[in-house]
Amino acid sequence: MKRRDAALVVLSFVCGTALALPRLGAAPTSPEPAQAATLASKDISLDQAQAAVAAALAKAKETGTKMDIAVVDAGANLKAFARMDGAWIGSIDISIKKAKTARFFDMPTGEIGKLSQPGKSLYQIEVSNQGLITFPGGVPIKGKDGTVIGAIGVSGSSVENDHAVASAGADSVK
Amino acid sequence: MKRRDAALVVLSFVCGTALALPRLGAAPTSPEPAQAATLASKDISLDQAQAAVAAALAKAKETGTKMDIAVVDAGANLKAFARMDGAWIGSIDISIKKAKTARFFDMPTGEIGKLSQPGKSLYQIEVSNQGLITFPGGVPIKGKDGTVIGAIGVSGSSVENDHAVASAGADSVK
Amino acid sequence: MKRRDAALVVLSFVCGTALALPRLGAAPTSPEPAQAATLASKDISLDQAQAAVAAALAKAKETGTKMDIAVVDAGANLKAFARMDGAWIGSIDISIKKAKTARFFDMPTGEIGKLSQPGKSLYQIEVSNQGLITFPGGVPIKGKDGTVIGAIGVSGSSVENDHAVASAGADSVK
Amino acid sequence: MKRRDAALVVLSFVCGTALALPRLGAAPTSPEPAQAATLASKDISLDQAQAAVAAALAKAKETGTKMDIAVVDAGANLKAFARMDGAWIGSIDISIKKAKTARFFDMPTGEIGKLSQPGKSLYQIEVSNQGLITFPGGVPIKGKDGTVIGAIGVSGSSVENDHAVASAGADSVK
Repeated sequence: MKRRDAALVVLSFVCGTALALPRLGAAPTSPEPAQAATLASKDISLDQAQAAVAAALAKAKETGTKMDIAVVDAGANLKAFARMDGAWIGSIDISIKKAKTARFFDMPTGEIGKLSQPGKSLYQIEVSNQGLITFPGGVPIKGKDGTVIGAIGVSGSSVENDHAVASAGADSVK
Repeated sequence: MKRRDAALVVLSFVCGTALALPRLGAAPTSPEPAQAATLASKDISLDQAQAAVAAALAKAKETGTKMDIAVVDAGANLKAFARMDGAWIGSIDISIKKAKTARFFDMPTGEIGKLSQPGKSLYQIEVSNQGLITFPGGVPIKGKDGTVIGAIGVSGSSVENDHAVASAGADSVK
Repeated sequence: MKRRDAALVVLSFVCGTALALPRLGAAPTSPEPAQAATLASKDISLDQAQAAVAAALAKAKETGTKMDIAVVDAGANLKAFARMDGAWIGSIDISIKKAKTARFFDMPTGEIGKLSQPGKSLYQIEVSNQGLITFPGGVPIKGKDGTVIGAIGVSGSSVENDHAVASAGADSVK
Repeated sequence: MKRRDAALVVLSFVCGTALALPRLGAAPTSPEPAQAATLASKDISLDQAQAAVAAALAKAKETGTKMDIAVVDAGANLKAFARMDGAWIGSIDISIKKAKTARFFDMPTGEIGKLSQPGKSLYQIEVSNQGLITFPGGVPIKGKDGTVIGAIGVSGSSVENDHAVASAGADSVK
């Protein structure tokens, strides 16, 4: 089907980098089949999460915006949060949902939004997971080796500003 | 209501194959009217559900994808589930919702998605049942005689891959 | 307050082992303060999760019970699930909530239940996290080094049987 | 209703200190009746909220505990949050609910818990507001003049430790 092929191309493109990352849970190469191996994973620390929030706050001040900023860990569970004075109350939930959405699928939220439009392959995906936010403002956070260790979600201004502030936060983590 | 009749026609067309299947609970043909008969139904066993998950896992590995795989029984209740290492966290809920959706309406989820587009007869059906997923990746599971005995839902890659892996799981049950 | 002191003793006792485990996120000892460190964590693999389900199924058959069995990962997200033929439908959600609860607090669910009774220190904790289950049947799963890498929840029989089957599943992982 | 009057008396007793505080929205004393006056309210700033989180983190480290710490504003909406490395995942929701509960009723959460026991006047109040937490660990935050400007909720250890860490956070705001 043509519509679906197009979506596949977009999705493949979007996931390109992520799929090239070291994968969790590679099959153990040892010959004895007996015992299944525990996965060695990585997770964002509170220091990193707070540094990401601070970087996002600095970017928000620089751009004169008032933002809600949320950071989740590798398990998509809330790690840090800050709401600027005067920022929208309705953006508390949106920023958290953006962060969760970005980690749920290891890609910026806006990429999912392109595929969830009417007629596209992921139409209405937003009703899942107790509510996804699929417009820009959620960005995965990667560690030094490129592994996704969490995500940041920002809400409070235009989606362009939200994305820029979220990216500033994510880029501050290495 | 006219609008609904039209929708029924469209739905019947879409469901063509499914509607031609032997129906659960067909009226008894015996002459004595006295006693209402209990329905003889069929249901997927755990062995079958686990076999479907295993077949789907094999297909996922073959195609180099990381999938969440859910199987529900004839009552649309969860029977078996597996999430591959590194598969999207957000696909847990989506794979389960795909399996439920496929059994809720006894057709592949993508067929419903064609009718839920803006302007189409089932627009916004996704908000029912605490959230349906109507893009491809959910497939009914049929027993030997063609009766629907459950469904499988797969999420984690493009909708084409999701559907292919789900179909591999469903086809393994006989 | 006396009531609270008693609770503290119980809680300290319960958490004893967990608190002695290697902690995530130990402060980096390097002198340069500049860059916050990513946490090195561990997570259950699908192979391990399926082995835990298989061990629980074997124990359930041995004891002649019909169980729902759920395994969550280190992030408390569903990893594997199986419902035995004839097992309670209502136990799907309970087994999943037991697994989540055990990972949420890194202790067997029944230990929390002792503290959530009327007059005890955690009374009504069950309304949090969209519903906790605090009677026995949920058990943390630990890796070789004692780190909690996930949890298993079992429901379908008496709470004693549920706990025994869950423990059989958890003990199979090393 | 008599039962409710009794409850009111008990509640008044419990709230004694809080009720003696300057109330928000006191009726204007100016003689002109014409125009209804807008309320002059006070609210916690992000700087104050982050200072409260920092003070709570310091107290948690001092006591060797791993805490989830949430601060809400005068509107009971999330303002700041931090989860220490290795702190319970299940305490995210509990710390936020403790902070909300403390602001919902302008008293420490443990005070409400005394009244929500079986047979007491506020039995089952926890099911309201999408889930209250009524054991210790939530504390109102007051400004210089004693006005409640927000609240802090802490979860991750015994309720005594939770309360002590929350109090350290609340006391840091002046």
